[in-house]
Amino acid sequence: MHDIGVVHRSITRPPRESVEALAPFGVSTIHEAMGRTGLMRPYMRPVYKGARVAGTAVTVLLQPGDNWMLHVAVEQIQPGDVIVAACTTESEDGFFGELLATSARARGAAGLIIDGGCRDIDALEAMDFPVFSRAINSKGTVKATVGSVNVPVVCANAPVTPGDVVVADTDGVVVVPASRVAEVAETARRREDAEAGKREQFAAGRLGLDMYAMREPLKAAGLTYVD
Amino acid sequence: MHDIGVVHRSITRPPRESVEALAPFGVSTIHEAMGRTGLMRPYMRPVYKGARVAGTAVTVLLQPGDNWMLHVAVEQIQPGDVIVAACTTESEDGFFGELLATSARARGAAGLIIDGGCRDIDALEAMDFPVFSRAINSKGTVKATVGSVNVPVVCANAPVTPGDVVVADTDGVVVVPASRVAEVAETARRREDAEAGKREQFAAGRLGLDMYAMREPLKAAGLTYVD
Amino acid sequence: MHDIGVVHRSITRPPRESVEALAPFGVSTIHEAMGRTGLMRPYMRPVYKGARVAGTAVTVLLQPGDNWMLHVAVEQIQPGDVIVAACTTESEDGFFGELLATSARARGAAGLIIDGGCRDIDALEAMDFPVFSRAINSKGTVKATVGSVNVPVVCANAPVTPGDVVVADTDGVVVVPASRVAEVAETARRREDAEAGKREQFAAGRLGLDMYAMREPLKAAGLTYVD
Amino acid sequence: MHDIGVVHRSITRPPRESVEALAPFGVSTIHEAMGRTGLMRPYMRPVYKGARVAGTAVTVLLQPGDNWMLHVAVEQIQPGDVIVAACTTESEDGFFGELLATSARARGAAGLIIDGGCRDIDALEAMDFPVFSRAINSKGTVKATVGSVNVPVVCANAPVTPGDVVVADTDGVVVVPASRVAEVAETARRREDAEAGKREQFAAGRLGLDMYAMREPLKAAGLTYVD
Amino acid sequence: MHDIGVVHRSITRPPRESVEALAPFGVSTIHEAMGRTGLMRPYMRPVYKGARVAGTAVTVLLQPGDNWMLHVAVEQIQPGDVIVAACTTESEDGFFGELLATSARARGAAGLIIDGGCRDIDALEAMDFPVFSRAINSKGTVKATVGSVNVPVVCANAPVTPGDVVVADTDGVVVVPASRVAEVAETARRREDAEAGKREQFAAGRLGLDMYAMREPLKAAGLTYVD
Amino acid sequence: MHDIGVVHRSITRPPRESVEALAPFGVSTIHEAMGRTGLMRPYMRPVYKGARVAGTAVTVLLQPGDNWMLHVAVEQIQPGDVIVAACTTESEDGFFGELLATSARARGAAGLIIDGGCRDIDALEAMDFPVFSRAINSKGTVKATVGSVNVPVVCANAPVTPGDVVVADTDGVVVVPASRVAEVAETARRREDAEAGKREQFAAGRLGLDMYAMREPLKAAGLTYVD
Repeated sequence: MHDIGVVHRSITRPPRESVEALAPFGVSTIHEAMGRTGLMRPYMRPVYKGARVAGTAVTVLLQPGDNWMLHVAVEQIQPGDVIVAACTTESEDGFFGELLATSARARGAAGLIIDGGCRDIDALEAMDFPVFSRAINSKGTVKATVGSVNVPVVCANAPVTPGDVVVADTDGVVVVPASRVAEVAETARRREDAEAGKREQFAAGRLGLDMYAMREPLKAAGLTYVD
Repeated sequence: MHDIGVVHRSITRPPRESVEALAPFGVSTIHEAMGRTGLMRPYMRPVYKGARVAGTAVTVLLQPGDNWMLHVAVEQIQPGDVIVAACTTESEDGFFGELLATSARARGAAGLIIDGGCRDIDALEAMDFPVFSRAINSKGTVKATVGSVNVPVVCANAPVTPGDVVVADTDGVVVVPASRVAEVAETARRREDAEAGKREQFAAGRLGLDMYAMREPLKAAGLTYVD
Repeated sequence: MHDIGVVHRSITRPPRESVEALAPFGVSTIHEAMGRTGLMRPYMRPVYKGARVAGTAVTVLLQPGDNWMLHVAVEQIQPGDVIVAACTTESEDGFFGELLATSARARGAAGLIIDGGCRDIDALEAMDFPVFSRAINSKGTVKATVGSVNVPVVCANAPVTPGDVVVADTDGVVVVPASRVAEVAETARRREDAEAGKREQFAAGRLGLDMYAMREPLKAAGLTYVD
Repeated sequence: MHDIGVVHRSITRPPRESVEALAPFGVSTIHEAMGRTGLMRPYMRPVYKGARVAGTAVTVLLQPGDNWMLHVAVEQIQPGDVIVAACTTESEDGFFGELLATSARARGAAGLIIDGGCRDIDALEAMDFPVFSRAINSKGTVKATVGSVNVPVVCANAPVTPGDVVVADTDGVVVVPASRVAEVAETARRREDAEAGKREQFAAGRLGLDMYAMREPLKAAGLTYVD
Repeated sequence: MHDIGVVHRSITRPPRESVEALAPFGVSTIHEAMGRTGLMRPYMRPVYKGARVAGTAVTVLLQPGDNWMLHVAVEQIQPGDVIVAACTTESEDGFFGELLATSARARGAAGLIIDGGCRDIDALEAMDFPVFSRAINSKGTVKATVGSVNVPVVCANAPVTPGDVVVADTDGVVVVPASRVAEVAETARRREDAEAGKREQFAAGRLGLDMYAMREPLKAAGLTYVD
Repeated sequence: MHDIGVVHRSITRPPRESVEALAPFGVSTIHEAMGRTGLMRPYMRPVYKGARVAGTAVTVLLQPGDNWMLHVAVEQIQPGDVIVAACTTESEDGFFGELLATSARARGAAGLIIDGGCRDIDALEAMDFPVFSRAINSKGTVKATVGSVNVPVVCANAPVTPGDVVVADTDGVVVVPASRVAEVAETARRREDAEAGKREQFAAGRLGLDMYAMREPLKAAGLTYVD
């Protein structure tokens, strides 16, 4: 899937409105609305508390210990994009820090998802530039070997096509294919509406056993009660 | 140890007062007061800063990727209980979130200890519903296979019998057998009293070497000083 | 490298001023100023948010599950020292907590770096005694087997000689040999000055591609743009 | 569950015949025959290819980096016993090697299951003394702190009571409570018989879909075929 | 990328000859011939020494702890296919063993690649049915929740489309898109030819420094020799 | 400790005889003879069964995903040397394979210890070129960034100075400082002699409790026997 040494300048982004329709929902809700697909591995964590981001993916394929392609990617950013950085192998070096964040933000970047390491955490928090990574690591990187920009990548076990919508919050990172953004946003909204009603009933003491009519199926599955 | 497909409705809880006697102490102190036993593995971490809980264990044995039994367990909760969820295998899916927390709280649950994943972290923090888990993970679960409620379980390598007292704070999670709660609380109190005196001496500059009379045993063990 | 059973009472510390010259810089900056060397493994993390420390290393070599040598080390502390604790093997027990922190602080210790576990995290945060460790763990330790104090150690894969300067912050932990402190501080200062200029240009929208003249070398390395 | 500092000299072992009835079956078969319970975590692996053991558990509770209790345990061994060694914390040091194996074998030990490290692997293979461990590690241990022998322990997340039967092979390690040995052996035998018939049908090309009548339930569960 | 609840009966396999052209090459050679792409994560290991397989992918998307879809997949196997099993989350249970291997082989399956656990290892070795997995685990699975067969999946971080060619040996697992099989086989052959010549020169004592003319670039990159 | 961009051509090797005196001993014995020091982390494993090596260290400091320096190192090899490769960060790519092994062997190399990945495992086994690594990985590497040769390195947490003697076998990897080789070989020999006597007594059924006179100290440490 990975082509090496190519930068695609033209990618198709979904309409801004549909991204905005999706942005208010949490990662867990969106993941459910997608039929329980689209999640990155749970080792992807926010680098500071409260980080949250939603935007369209500009993808980068990095080489281990080498952040050259991140500079190439910055030029391809349009306002509202999120950089999604995969690597040709596992590498937890500090590919990204305050200066790149400053540059990316100047181009309109909304944040970074990186299957690698990140540094300058305090500065990123002060800027409120959201980063989700697999590691925090000061280790510096070189600029010696080319990768690619805006090719399909696999990031933390999730496939990402340029222009997909990525949403990340305290619960994790989820990828929504561009073609499904509107549908998923609508399903997420319905799910949240349904949850509001359930929350009220739960808060009033009604049991999931009754609300979801589980007693019969549990009995059929062999569950026995003992006093 | 694990029986599958059984819900025990009657468990013996220690008197509320003895739980309350134990609750003020930290996990490290209680673990010491128990002769350095009772700890879960240190991969069990609070899902938000400041989470803390003490209560009587209602145990659940989950199947991987399946949270059916948590709904069954909620019905067995009495005020002050803590749900302790083990799994028949290693599984880090998001078994628990805001709705289940709302339901559990409505029954009086004090919190959750789960050797698995948890989601809706921001909502849990907003509710201040303490959860200690091995992972944060949006991954949804099914309701297809029965496990058990209120059977003895092993959770994060610690054996837990329903009715045991569980205390969890920033340092970790400790389990106190119901029969030992009063004794452990008393030992913990004495330990804290003794520590107060030691803290004062340490703060005044007295060395552990002198306070604990270590110089002779260190010499006997072969320790040599070189200038 | 590890000698067992020895305490060196005399170590050479760099002049206080040169430590103070280094202290204001972040770990990532210092690591770069050292030619990208000196980092501990990124599994070393602060035990509470905002922990930060810079000081001269008093080293300790611990035995697994045994914190005896930490009491021995405390006596060797001079104001401004940081305890750097390695272990003869991998051990994540809770070697250090509030009482030892109180004792160490009374001697002037600035903090602790430990390739092991730590406990009493809330108390350490309340005291603002910075600790960087590989684990948080209540598990108590014994005082039965000697190790060493102020011998050269390897801590989280980084070699540390007593008297080296250690700086730790949210990004990680870096070790600066005593002989290089002044030089590294000067390089770090120049690096920060240079970064200020770059930051300004990045913020104004200038690309790294242009600022670092990368377009030619990227082309030479075979990077192709596709529309 | 763990009592420290005690050696129980009298434990109840199931009759030799029932152990022998269980011994021919594989770990996976026994685990199934127990209703899918009793397994240790899969990080427990044989230290050499072909290691296999079945016997009655003599349990040991070790302290980290300390193998004193293994010498205490050896005296409690009766022919056909398997030493099951847990630790009060995670420790991967080399607690056991050729000399202890020679001693244990002289007492009739059939093998060792240890939630820790082991060394002298080539010698153990040459002796054909089966060991299942979480690590291979040369790191030597001390004899300084007491643990216990023949107390109930949790080993690699599985509870083990002295006298339980432990079976280990290439697939892993399973623990059968003493009271269930005969029943489990019988169920295992029936399961193997049933599998022989299934194996024949599978080999002849019959599908599990038909053999287990899965087509209807799959359809009911929503599975759709597309050409 | 993952569609749940669908079985695609028609997939396009590359011509048998081109698979056969690829089969003789090692995984490392094929990975190089693909421009260093296509590898699964290195945690995928053969379950017995000497396992090796090359064939066309029939993909399966499993649910955690549930092997129902493997039975569905077996029906879709054609001679020479390799089952490639991904999971909707991380799950190391024993999804596959001797009976399924017997059934799969009866349909002509060449082997299994599974981002999960496997059991009955000795029997699989005796049958010489090659399996590459992330874990060996006796833990049994249920048949309760549908996944998919022959949808695109991500397996151990590598994207796999049904009909892709998968090659696995002691070095790891590599995936070759169906459309590139002939080209990659040809490149691999040329690479092996070139390596034969290099091997001879290396064996005769010629240095890579000279064979690859590295001395100048190393000097230009700043490498200094010190006597 | 790590200097970047330097190749030291002259290193001091201990006399060949003293290496030969050390070579017959196992890693565990040598580690004990050194006072339980010198071990690399136990994640370093032989890449094929039966690999064993002893020789003088030629050290290499690699950059992540870059094996350029291995070619530089080969030129510095003298017969009987073992290449010890550390990396400036954690990197598990396949830095080394059959061609480099052929080149290294032509110069007289006895083997490789690498805190990284290795590939062409079957070929290495066929050549019987022993490699101990942290990973097996096909992932190819580049030749773009300089590191160093024959500088002091830390490899898998153990400090290694060029000319140190490295011994590796099934139990792990141990490093003996050049200055201590003769002494350690002598201690190892005495230890093996002592073990022969102990082995005989153990085999005859004598207990460690009696042989090491442990009964009194165990009682003093509080161990209690219960019938």
